[in-house]
Amino acid sequence: MLEKFFFFAVKFIIMQKLIKNLVQKNNSKIVLVVLDGLGGLPVNGKTELDAAATPNLDKLAKESACGLHIPVDVGITPGSGPGHFALFGYDPIEYQIGRGILEALGLRLDVKNTDVSVRCNYATIKDSLIVDRRAGRIPTEQSKKLTEKLQSRIKKINEAELIFAPGMEHRFAVILRFPEPLEADAAAINDTDPQLEGKPPLYPSPLSKSAERVSLIAEKLINAVHEVLKDEKQANFILMRGFSVKPKLPTFEEAFGLKALAIATYPMYGGLAKLVDMDTPAIKGSVEDEIKFLKQKYNDYDFFFLHVKKIDSYGEDGNFAEKAARISEFDELLPQIIELNPDVLIITGDHSTPALMKSHSWHPVPVLLKSPYVLGGLCNSFSERECYKGELGLFPTIKLMPLALAHAKRLKKFGA
Amino acid sequence: MLEKFFFFAVKFIIMQKLIKNLVQKNNSKIVLVVLDGLGGLPVNGKTELDAAATPNLDKLAKESACGLHIPVDVGITPGSGPGHFALFGYDPIEYQIGRGILEALGLRLDVKNTDVSVRCNYATIKDSLIVDRRAGRIPTEQSKKLTEKLQSRIKKINEAELIFAPGMEHRFAVILRFPEPLEADAAAINDTDPQLEGKPPLYPSPLSKSAERVSLIAEKLINAVHEVLKDEKQANFILMRGFSVKPKLPTFEEAFGLKALAIATYPMYGGLAKLVDMDTPAIKGSVEDEIKFLKQKYNDYDFFFLHVKKIDSYGEDGNFAEKAARISEFDELLPQIIELNPDVLIITGDHSTPALMKSHSWHPVPVLLKSPYVLGGLCNSFSERECYKGELGLFPTIKLMPLALAHAKRLKKFGA
Repeated sequence: MLEKFFFFAVKFIIMQKLIKNLVQKNNSKIVLVVLDGLGGLPVNGKTELDAAATPNLDKLAKESACGLHIPVDVGITPGSGPGHFALFGYDPIEYQIGRGILEALGLRLDVKNTDVSVRCNYATIKDSLIVDRRAGRIPTEQSKKLTEKLQSRIKKINEAELIFAPGMEHRFAVILRFPEPLEADAAAINDTDPQLEGKPPLYPSPLSKSAERVSLIAEKLINAVHEVLKDEKQANFILMRGFSVKPKLPTFEEAFGLKALAIATYPMYGGLAKLVDMDTPAIKGSVEDEIKFLKQKYNDYDFFFLHVKKIDSYGEDGNFAEKAARISEFDELLPQIIELNPDVLIITGDHSTPALMKSHSWHPVPVLLKSPYVLGGLCNSFSERECYKGELGLFPTIKLMPLALAHAKRLKKFGA
Repeated sequence: MLEKFFFFAVKFIIMQKLIKNLVQKNNSKIVLVVLDGLGGLPVNGKTELDAAATPNLDKLAKESACGLHIPVDVGITPGSGPGHFALFGYDPIEYQIGRGILEALGLRLDVKNTDVSVRCNYATIKDSLIVDRRAGRIPTEQSKKLTEKLQSRIKKINEAELIFAPGMEHRFAVILRFPEPLEADAAAINDTDPQLEGKPPLYPSPLSKSAERVSLIAEKLINAVHEVLKDEKQANFILMRGFSVKPKLPTFEEAFGLKALAIATYPMYGGLAKLVDMDTPAIKGSVEDEIKFLKQKYNDYDFFFLHVKKIDSYGEDGNFAEKAARISEFDELLPQIIELNPDVLIITGDHSTPALMKSHSWHPVPVLLKSPYVLGGLCNSFSERECYKGELGLFPTIKLMPLALAHAKRLKKFGA
């Protein structure tokens, strides 16, 4: 762990502090549009971006700085957490976000620095052995009722307040909220899921001294839940995974001097923005509704993160045509954003999700950055192949925020 | 030195461990073809790759991910050790391979973690002064006899077993094999070669506490050799250089989860692969024989390193036409590799050896990576200039292994 923190410290001192020292404020507006899973791969020679009808993106690309960015490292496929953290300017290897936190954020829980977040499964136990790790994938409605029952019966264990949040089918999340902020390794506890059926559940063993207290509470929680659920046929036990504390991060405003608004209909993405203290009002509706909200709030913030989810979803489904169609749909709405005339407009993704692969991938993500201070004239359209000709080249995603600040004239000169 | 080791630890923990944690196994096959010294420079406007007839490489380049990689760092000319270690995914600055080891590997010695490897010269000493540092470059045959004589007379000094291996002319290697693994600085001993004739040989002084014992044995060895050879006219003494222990490395299988076979007719390259525990059977013959061997063993391994030497040799000779001819020759054989249809096929070099320079050089090395999951369509042929247009861009060579694993679907997603 020492080495890890040392590296953190070095990077913080050298780069994040450098940027922080150069930050200056002005009235500029920066809009970052994240088309989730944007990057693709060719099917019959054309990628999703090639196949989509994108006259507005193409026009913008011609006059923008274009390139491709690599979220984590060459060959590494990012999850949504690392992908977004890199876009927000936080090194995704240094600031790793536990799976428990992502689950909690996705279920609209508010994660504080006093919390241990855990993702849980209902499971079936018989004679001390796990006979079904997913409790027969019980219906979401039933799972919700059980979770509400747990919340009403188990409110506190030792000094930890408990917050339950129902999820889909057998899944839910729980937060153990302590009275004071927790240390970085306070949730270093192994998963209790034995991974194989017919085995006993594992004990939530502490992997660090400071995790002992959380471990004891987790054990009591498992027993208390079993006491409440013991007469259930299927969901009579829980398995706990991904114990995590919120990483210690500078807020977005501390790091970049920007008052930021996150506009995202899927809770997890707003949740990720909330981890760096962006404002993240709960929003529902279409991409057009998101853009309306952007217009409404345009005078109140410096920085806007607008998240478009469906492009990724169709990529994950392997539905090339629908992924392309969602890109075309965004392209039709794009003029509404351009009309706002932000000082810096960035359009990109958090990672690639080629329909060909039906999954996130490691491929660099195309990006365009529009501002009065770009070279431009290098790309004929907005596509993976054209972006390779662009002035931004192939670069680590965490450099995007310094680029945005620079083009917004929000970074002073370095040195005399 | 502290910083160096500390940095080592950090890098190991953060990146190598990251990859190791993401590695998953499947049945994919990865073939890495190393055309030694591939990269070149233009003579009359064309590089060796431009001048060579390469219809098969050109076709492959059109549908592959292409780019250029930098083995050590910008402007740094790599030796064969660093060049190959970088290709194998090991940071060549962190894992430095001593010259004694390279010499021993080139002479088909097996280097263990209990060994100190040293490259030696026969020399002529008179009145305690070195009068010929190369013993008149005695014929290889004579040198071989002397080395065999040394081996028969000097088998052990203190606890160290001695293994001699004859080389070309005045050169040979010796290994001091200890009963137990050695510490990283156990061979921190200065060369005994005074570099100038007319000077006395230097004492093999220890530069660290743990090198003292090796130093004493080296001194005894020098005296014992002189006792055996004292009546020789020319080769009556030895100079020792490049004392080295095997660096502590994770094996290739530990690092990447791949069962690997090295196919190389020149012993040093198989030896480099053996340092990371690839299987390295002794092989003789032409490039076509190497490819035959690849076919024979194709079902038994996950990863194949196939080394083609002659391209570099002609580069070193400054023979542009022959270097290009050897590239053309490989191109004719390439369909035999393509027929195997590996999941990932990489064709590249370990460094550039422009015939124009008659030496290794620092120039980035062209690479193509063929897999179903590439963008492709960016390069018209396989050449230095075309590779600059490719999707891999200009990147550190050590990123090639993560890329290979990613394209073979052998890396899990990072973060949720």
